[in-house]
Amino acid sequence: MRDVNREFSLGELAVRFGLELRGDPALRVSHVATLSGAMPGSLSFLANSRARKHLSASHATAIVLSAGDAEACPAAALIGANPHLSFARIATLLHPQPTATPGVHPSAVVADTARIASSASVGPFCVIEAGAQVGERVELGAGCTVLAGARIGADSRLMPRVTLYAAVQIGQRCIVHTGAVIGADGFGFAPDEGTWVKVPQVGSVRIGDDVEIGANTTVDRGAIEDTVIEDGVKLDNQIQVGHNVVIGAHTAIAACTGISGSTVIGRRCMIGGMVGFAGHLTIADDVSVTGCSLVSASIRHSGSYSSGMPTVETRAWRRMVAHLRRFGEKER
Amino acid sequence: MRDVNREFSLGELAVRFGLELRGDPALRVSHVATLSGAMPGSLSFLANSRARKHLSASHATAIVLSAGDAEACPAAALIGANPHLSFARIATLLHPQPTATPGVHPSAVVADTARIASSASVGPFCVIEAGAQVGERVELGAGCTVLAGARIGADSRLMPRVTLYAAVQIGQRCIVHTGAVIGADGFGFAPDEGTWVKVPQVGSVRIGDDVEIGANTTVDRGAIEDTVIEDGVKLDNQIQVGHNVVIGAHTAIAACTGISGSTVIGRRCMIGGMVGFAGHLTIADDVSVTGCSLVSASIRHSGSYSSGMPTVETRAWRRMVAHLRRFGEKER
Amino acid sequence: MRDVNREFSLGELAVRFGLELRGDPALRVSHVATLSGAMPGSLSFLANSRARKHLSASHATAIVLSAGDAEACPAAALIGANPHLSFARIATLLHPQPTATPGVHPSAVVADTARIASSASVGPFCVIEAGAQVGERVELGAGCTVLAGARIGADSRLMPRVTLYAAVQIGQRCIVHTGAVIGADGFGFAPDEGTWVKVPQVGSVRIGDDVEIGANTTVDRGAIEDTVIEDGVKLDNQIQVGHNVVIGAHTAIAACTGISGSTVIGRRCMIGGMVGFAGHLTIADDVSVTGCSLVSASIRHSGSYSSGMPTVETRAWRRMVAHLRRFGEKER
Repeated sequence: MRDVNREFSLGELAVRFGLELRGDPALRVSHVATLSGAMPGSLSFLANSRARKHLSASHATAIVLSAGDAEACPAAALIGANPHLSFARIATLLHPQPTATPGVHPSAVVADTARIASSASVGPFCVIEAGAQVGERVELGAGCTVLAGARIGADSRLMPRVTLYAAVQIGQRCIVHTGAVIGADGFGFAPDEGTWVKVPQVGSVRIGDDVEIGANTTVDRGAIEDTVIEDGVKLDNQIQVGHNVVIGAHTAIAACTGISGSTVIGRRCMIGGMVGFAGHLTIADDVSVTGCSLVSASIRHSGSYSSGMPTVETRAWRRMVAHLRRFGEKER
Repeated sequence: MRDVNREFSLGELAVRFGLELRGDPALRVSHVATLSGAMPGSLSFLANSRARKHLSASHATAIVLSAGDAEACPAAALIGANPHLSFARIATLLHPQPTATPGVHPSAVVADTARIASSASVGPFCVIEAGAQVGERVELGAGCTVLAGARIGADSRLMPRVTLYAAVQIGQRCIVHTGAVIGADGFGFAPDEGTWVKVPQVGSVRIGDDVEIGANTTVDRGAIEDTVIEDGVKLDNQIQVGHNVVIGAHTAIAACTGISGSTVIGRRCMIGGMVGFAGHLTIADDVSVTGCSLVSASIRHSGSYSSGMPTVETRAWRRMVAHLRRFGEKER
Repeated sequence: MRDVNREFSLGELAVRFGLELRGDPALRVSHVATLSGAMPGSLSFLANSRARKHLSASHATAIVLSAGDAEACPAAALIGANPHLSFARIATLLHPQPTATPGVHPSAVVADTARIASSASVGPFCVIEAGAQVGERVELGAGCTVLAGARIGADSRLMPRVTLYAAVQIGQRCIVHTGAVIGADGFGFAPDEGTWVKVPQVGSVRIGDDVEIGANTTVDRGAIEDTVIEDGVKLDNQIQVGHNVVIGAHTAIAACTGISGSTVIGRRCMIGGMVGFAGHLTIADDVSVTGCSLVSASIRHSGSYSSGMPTVETRAWRRMVAHLRRFGEKER
């Protein structure tokens, strides 16, 4: 993937991204690299203390970093206040995503009443049902299934094998990775003398703009009203979002987290991996939850919350569990 | 999705579902709604104390509730002992699932020796291998793959992109959501001097009647004998069922739970989300396990079991972990 | 699946697999069975103490076991030092995997510049993009998607509906189960005043030889350098492997485990199910981690590590949590 796609001079990059350049503006970079993997032509970056040990020996042509690290930079320095952000933007320029050719692959099955923008690209073996809408410049990878009445906003990109159930709405500039399932039935059953009767899930899913959804993530449709994912939310892989959950704008959630039905998560939250949320909770804006925690009650104030228990040697762990169990005995 | 599908008078609903009506039997409802989202024509319900605060201000035409709540009902009341169940049945009537047209889509690849009932519907890009059987009125969504010898009972419905490995059996009236994989190899390897040799997984999977399986859930085939899911079991999304697991009838399991090989779960259990079961356990009938618990030993008696640790502020959590670690030190 | 595929005499099996035979070498077996499910013609095995209680009543024709158990064997005994391994090999002989016919299904969409070995089998509705390479005797099940430049080594087998993103490399003799997604973007975003900017994920994924990857498992592509899974690694279902993770040779990982970005796991580790690994850790060779643990710090020494809390009755658990919370209060 380290294709040399394009080349840019450091002078050009400094101007375009508002960075201070210490070095020769005529030098050119063609690709990104880690500090330790860099070679001539590489652009690298330093954005956290963990990587600083690799700085002095880097063979990069240029390194994006903060002013405080510029002194120690062995290459041309592109200096900015947010090196990770500047790096992200330069990397997007150096490694542009290939874009698909507009048009509907002849193998795709498209209902007469579906509306596909002429600038959209629909891959092989896609199925687009009645009343579905596919916006301008949308890309559907191979094998995507867009059920009746689902809508996809302009410039969104579905990787191969994404399924949108009926009436699901996806905003603009979203990215949805392979295997994601948006709008499957929520888990709703009424008990009936030891058996379960299915409660029809008649809500849908509304996903805002600039949302990214990871591979094999599932977002269930609402029971009555809709499940909602607001603008700018980033969901990693294998996340489960239950029916009628609301995830506030610009919240980021790491892989394998599960959110039970009707829980409302605030804006700009950062949720670690494999976190479990009980249902019907309200989580404030700007809450962080560290990985492997169980959120079983609402969180009213922004801040950092945890309950993941870190590993110790199994023998020590057994002693800890034995002690803990004593606390479970009834008070006498 | 809030299509006005059909309309029914309250008198008709009361008779059909054995409910007591307080209000005008000629009033008509066309769709379901939440108490707070209801408008004229809406049927709503009240089944738990959490929603009661929305009752008095509801604009619903009719509300399904229990006798104890009828006094406070601001609309026509449909009164029954199990409002959630009655609501589920009325909602099924008001919002019927669209049914597919019988027939095999011309793009589907069907082996000569596969048997497809004439009333079944097989969607685009399905693959049905030799010896597979698809029962009466079965619906296979786009891109389903039914490998050699797999069988699907009457009236079952596979949403798009479900895969049944060879010889898997699905009962009648089952629903399987997108991305589910039934019958992949169990995780069986024999150690051989620091490497692993695959143990062929020659069992299969047998799934009873009226089972629902969520999106991206995986049920592995047995190592020698079959993995078994009994009648009426409800599995949410992203559940993992290991080889030779048995899940007893009418047990319901919430999302992201994992069940290791050869564990036997009883009937009518209710398992929360993200619960981990160790292998080779026996779990009694009528056991509840709350979310994010680890079941590492057999459970012999019905009851409620837990081990999920609730979040606290991260600073407090760090102190708790530091204290806990002292219990791990060897006794002196 | 208990097809009688082939028959072998015990004499033949003893010679071929270096086992000591106590019994009639002319007896023949046709299939494997559990000790309790065996009948005439069955070959069974005893490899752990849990199954020993079923030994004396078994109707198997022959049983693979260790010398210590041979005395009590009610059938012909095939005796070896590693009965599970010997059983795996005999089972592979008795139940050979059906092999697909070479050739590309006419429905598959294959780019002109893709290279498909003539001995390979490409199933219906596969998509193979430009520059991709499919090696000798590779089998691609229905609906596999191999994006631009991805490569699959000889004798590997992808079950239906596997997706390889661009430039992913799979070694020889690998097995990848349905729904696995290899090479989706890692979860990389740079913060920009309360919103997130995507960091292009320009690395890829390199998977060694003899790797097995379970159903719906996801392995993300690297941010800059590659995510790496070394030879002989076995990954169960629904595992999440973050960007730039390295998993050392012959490590086995049970279902639902999640590994955050840039963590390096050693060789021959055994990781239980639903384990969470934080990012940027280093785990030594020969480490075991029991199920439902959280590995939040590097592990420098081989050994067994745990932190999964076992369930107790919910009432007892509530008391335990209440006590634990006292440790979280500030020291006074």
